[in-house]
Amino acid sequence: MNSPFIGCPVAELPTPCLTLDAPALEANLSRMQRLATGAGKALRPHAKSHKCSELAKRQVAHGAVGICAAKVSEAVALVEAGVRNVLLTGPAITPWAHEQVLRCAKSDPGFLLVLDDAALARPLAERAAAEGLVLRHLLDLDVGQLRTGARPEAADGAAAGLAALPGLRLVGIQAYAGHLQHEAGLANRREANRRALEPACEAWVRLQAAYALEVFSVGGTGTAAFDVELPGVTEIQPGSYALMDADYGAVEFSGEPFATALRLHTTVLSARHAGFATVDAGLKSVYRDGPAPVVLSPGGAGWSYDWYGDEYGRISLPEGARLTPAERLELAVSHCDPTVNLFDWLYLTEAGVVHEAWRVDLRGCSQ
Amino acid sequence: MNSPFIGCPVAELPTPCLTLDAPALEANLSRMQRLATGAGKALRPHAKSHKCSELAKRQVAHGAVGICAAKVSEAVALVEAGVRNVLLTGPAITPWAHEQVLRCAKSDPGFLLVLDDAALARPLAERAAAEGLVLRHLLDLDVGQLRTGARPEAADGAAAGLAALPGLRLVGIQAYAGHLQHEAGLANRREANRRALEPACEAWVRLQAAYALEVFSVGGTGTAAFDVELPGVTEIQPGSYALMDADYGAVEFSGEPFATALRLHTTVLSARHAGFATVDAGLKSVYRDGPAPVVLSPGGAGWSYDWYGDEYGRISLPEGARLTPAERLELAVSHCDPTVNLFDWLYLTEAGVVHEAWRVDLRGCSQ
Repeated sequence: MNSPFIGCPVAELPTPCLTLDAPALEANLSRMQRLATGAGKALRPHAKSHKCSELAKRQVAHGAVGICAAKVSEAVALVEAGVRNVLLTGPAITPWAHEQVLRCAKSDPGFLLVLDDAALARPLAERAAAEGLVLRHLLDLDVGQLRTGARPEAADGAAAGLAALPGLRLVGIQAYAGHLQHEAGLANRREANRRALEPACEAWVRLQAAYALEVFSVGGTGTAAFDVELPGVTEIQPGSYALMDADYGAVEFSGEPFATALRLHTTVLSARHAGFATVDAGLKSVYRDGPAPVVLSPGGAGWSYDWYGDEYGRISLPEGARLTPAERLELAVSHCDPTVNLFDWLYLTEAGVVHEAWRVDLRGCSQ
Repeated sequence: MNSPFIGCPVAELPTPCLTLDAPALEANLSRMQRLATGAGKALRPHAKSHKCSELAKRQVAHGAVGICAAKVSEAVALVEAGVRNVLLTGPAITPWAHEQVLRCAKSDPGFLLVLDDAALARPLAERAAAEGLVLRHLLDLDVGQLRTGARPEAADGAAAGLAALPGLRLVGIQAYAGHLQHEAGLANRREANRRALEPACEAWVRLQAAYALEVFSVGGTGTAAFDVELPGVTEIQPGSYALMDADYGAVEFSGEPFATALRLHTTVLSARHAGFATVDAGLKSVYRDGPAPVVLSPGGAGWSYDWYGDEYGRISLPEGARLTPAERLELAVSHCDPTVNLFDWLYLTEAGVVHEAWRVDLRGCSQ
């Protein structure tokens, strides 16, 4: 399905809407690919941030070895859109989820999933074996978030349990330090990441020898530069770097920071009061999580956005500034992942014109 | 499009998902309709809360005089789904929004919109007149939220300005006290509502005589019982009462409270640690706004939900309780409006079985 807005001035897009600044996106994709390639590592970007198979394909065109999905429904959507070498980074433990995993593996010969417990994996393993499939999987290790995954010190037992099942082949490990991605201070984040990943790196040494593993997948946007220094790591899986947001905008990066490619456009609806105006983007368009959105245009000191209900936002103005109804503003959103998940389209823009419209085809895939 | 889950046990729905307890929904719809009818008022429920034209039609079947929409794209979706007497409760001020308003008015002879400023309304009025249409509208009054609308003391001037335009007919006023819906304490809320609405009630007396007005539309779920007592009010426009959430669950109602018809189902993914477990519903499924979600099942003291990232939630357990992977829980969500907007389906359930599946067809309509 095509958007009727291709070729339109950005100023004619109905708001609220999300655009991607095409040169900024291009620069972000190239920069992360160079970071990985330059360190001799593979890049498998995470689609949970952008929810868009077109953008995933753009990442593959830049050299990505595959794409990550957080949920089985995301993995199915990616595979059905023709993306290959999809890694499912979250657990699939119900009969319905197992069915989706088998669907993915049948269409995508490079499909990978993570497992962390032989007892939970057994029904999937038996179904795969019964269908003559061998599911390639990574052992998921918990490196401090306590959310999912086996503890690194229990990795050997978990690997042995999984290796004893039919229909599976252990090809690597995953260790995602989600809790460290926004850690303040470069040196601090690097050291926290090294310490958190150390037990996983040690497990890698033991398991790699025992099972001839090929993949050691780690990291996110905040730690990518340090992840590639870790011994054994073969690939990184950052997501937000492609779009960026106020949350990562506040994080220190080494070298040139990633650009805020993602912009939320909003229109002034009412400007009757001194010091603030009402705009058309509220909770349902700018997800309320993380730091306040940043007013990029008109930008500068004294401009700020706050939520003003489900449908409205409130722009506070610097002394002497005014807004008039129908004026448009651009924001950097608080947290890109859940915000993109509120929209159906990402509009690619350059020099004030909409060049492409990408469907957010993984939107709502949270199962 | 039909859901493949009709007739399935609720326990087989892939999670996270939203269900509506059919008897609870039925009771909520009847109760609010009785509240309005019993006071001699009309009910025009707000669809911004449920984003579902099927549910809107159910409300009309219960006696609602029409349905409210917050944004023009919502209004278009409702009208195209066959809903009639749609009231657009938010501003439409851009050329694109004006086009959508004209679309609605052509299909829905009972269509109403709100206006609050003659200068902003002029382009719409002139387009309507050029097409031989007369747009029926309410003057929107700001009763203290300072978001949109003319101040009640400026109502006469605003009405005169709008009445001088071609293509429009002023048929009423709207006054929405959004800031009072969750005010603590029944007596306190009633008095705050009376005080906030008083200037609008006075404006109604003046304007009703001058323009032979028919509609005075006010209120939400939290004030509905008091709105119907106000002099002049002809209709109420509550939304959340149909679904309910933890936010309204904490609000005191007179008489029997509305039931929590909306349930979020989530599955335990990992339960390795003492005192808590990881479930599959995170920021992208339970919108983080308002009070914490409530664990309804297994319920009771000591159970709580917290967000654990975009894709995960953390269930804290009471002393001695345990969860095991693949177990399912039901939550009352924090804030129903932005949460429903994250999903494509509302599953109607009764006695543990899915009876109907309603598309959330207004989801994402935030323009």
